[in-house]
Amino acid sequence: MSIPKTHRRIVLARRPPGEPVESDFRLEEVPVPECGPKEVLVRNIYLSLDPYMRGRMRDVASYAPPVQIGEVMTGGTVGQIVASNHAGFKVGDFVEERLGWQEYGISQGVSLRKIDPAWAPISTANGVLGMPGMTAYFGLLEVGKPKPGETVVVSAASGAVGQIVGQIAKLMGCRVVGIAGGAKKCAFVKDELGFDACVDYKAGGDLAKAIKDACPNGVDVYFDNVGGSVTDAVFVNLNFFARVSLCGSISGYNAAAPEMGPRLFMIFVGRRVNMRGFIVSDFIQHWPAAMKQMGEWVRSGKVKYREDIVQGIENAPRAFIGLLRGENFGKLQVQLGPDPTK
Amino acid sequence: MSIPKTHRRIVLARRPPGEPVESDFRLEEVPVPECGPKEVLVRNIYLSLDPYMRGRMRDVASYAPPVQIGEVMTGGTVGQIVASNHAGFKVGDFVEERLGWQEYGISQGVSLRKIDPAWAPISTANGVLGMPGMTAYFGLLEVGKPKPGETVVVSAASGAVGQIVGQIAKLMGCRVVGIAGGAKKCAFVKDELGFDACVDYKAGGDLAKAIKDACPNGVDVYFDNVGGSVTDAVFVNLNFFARVSLCGSISGYNAAAPEMGPRLFMIFVGRRVNMRGFIVSDFIQHWPAAMKQMGEWVRSGKVKYREDIVQGIENAPRAFIGLLRGENFGKLQVQLGPDPTK
Repeated sequence: MSIPKTHRRIVLARRPPGEPVESDFRLEEVPVPECGPKEVLVRNIYLSLDPYMRGRMRDVASYAPPVQIGEVMTGGTVGQIVASNHAGFKVGDFVEERLGWQEYGISQGVSLRKIDPAWAPISTANGVLGMPGMTAYFGLLEVGKPKPGETVVVSAASGAVGQIVGQIAKLMGCRVVGIAGGAKKCAFVKDELGFDACVDYKAGGDLAKAIKDACPNGVDVYFDNVGGSVTDAVFVNLNFFARVSLCGSISGYNAAAPEMGPRLFMIFVGRRVNMRGFIVSDFIQHWPAAMKQMGEWVRSGKVKYREDIVQGIENAPRAFIGLLRGENFGKLQVQLGPDPTK
Repeated sequence: MSIPKTHRRIVLARRPPGEPVESDFRLEEVPVPECGPKEVLVRNIYLSLDPYMRGRMRDVASYAPPVQIGEVMTGGTVGQIVASNHAGFKVGDFVEERLGWQEYGISQGVSLRKIDPAWAPISTANGVLGMPGMTAYFGLLEVGKPKPGETVVVSAASGAVGQIVGQIAKLMGCRVVGIAGGAKKCAFVKDELGFDACVDYKAGGDLAKAIKDACPNGVDVYFDNVGGSVTDAVFVNLNFFARVSLCGSISGYNAAAPEMGPRLFMIFVGRRVNMRGFIVSDFIQHWPAAMKQMGEWVRSGKVKYREDIVQGIENAPRAFIGLLRGENFGKLQVQLGPDPTK
């Protein structure tokens, strides 16, 4: 494909005080950037949408700097090189990078990763064979440290990370219970992914009791993607020496100030709970080995994945707003252009 | 001293729904128990009063069973053997045991620990050279894992555990900041114990800001004895890869149901905080070595301690109620009878 003169991108227009609305984002048409010395120009095919992006919309420095007003929204991308002045990459290579919410992007090659399209569909480099998969792998195995026979509970169980966490835990010989919103997601988690049980947090009733019923031996490892009242309901079911792997708190991402919840730390003392927050890049040195293992699991069918792919960059803001509401079903991505491998 | 026919004890009369009142306890005069085969009879001299006892007044099994209605309140004691049918112990020995809120008690010798009165005042076996001292030692060194140059914050800094935590952290080469209630306690912590700073949580104003000012490099280790809003104010000051050693949550012990507080777990993810609850008995195998080290520190004056000793078993309930309000100043004990080593 020839390189167009202009491309589309989405910038942060305004910092949302609460739940984002579409006007917090702005679609722009701008010139496609020139490929400078030692750079490559990538046509982005898939944009990954992930909950952490809500944090980057705040004017608060965390482990990564915030997106500035007028700046392209940050994000992981899978694409194909269309111009290269970099000795290590050639036109036609499929690559994974963090080029953000835009149709084309420039990379200096430092964090550019080549993808073999014969290995797995290239979109998986944004999912099970990318950051979300690695998050599941290290957050479960290195932070949660499950032992065979233990009970592992994971929230947002049908999401990009949760679906992988549960399947790895099954491979480790654990009893695995998911928590998801709605009967359809729960059925998928149980019937398609092979979890032992799935609790529907939208079903109403006593969630703590429902989790207790699904975990007759209590909860040894809790992989938390959501926080809030779902997490409260798991906490009261934690076993002695339980581990909590804190991956995210999506239920609170839109709140202007921290929401209120019951103080449950007394549970943590008596039961000697160990809770630890982590960021997947903390384990970056060990990604290659983990990626190899995940690739084998995916290719052998031991780990399945579900993607939720939205078409067109103009639909990214709406899809992202839906992600924060739990409206996606599987790993959410935006397809920005044709995928020549399909 | 001859053994009297009767002695006094305090039993749990009622489970308090909230803050305990004196009528939740009952003072009884009962026969002094007979010393059976392989048993010893101990005259208790010092009774330790500790926050965990509030948990034992609830009808909830935790890491230890609750005290039953009509049963003697549980508690650590230091005393002297007045009758012995046990080959390992003789009349006159000073011992530490868990004989509860009573003037005399029977031990089978299993958890009986001899005390050398030449080593340190015998009351310290309930404090710096007993359970609270070991709690400080292991909770700081094994759970908090401070490194030289790091900033350690400890709540209830003038209390039985807090005062020791801070002094050990100083010995480890850390910057140490206490949190205590009132100018007198803060002055003691700084001037007598050598903490670098102490924040008065009763002073009013923005506590998080006061902690920030006292910790210009942020907080690397937080040893938490109190929970609640004091802990919230520390959490927002935690550094990347900070550790929280959860020892207790005294601020919530009287609450019938968990109190509400801000959900701050988002901090834990981005900053990779590791929070762990512990019970001092988890480290019981390592107590002898730790006790030897603590003994050396105490004898050389490197670790000081302050005791708050109330006279007479009849005053134990009131003293305990005051402990939960933070009214004590130093390690709270009740002297039940004469101390022949003084």
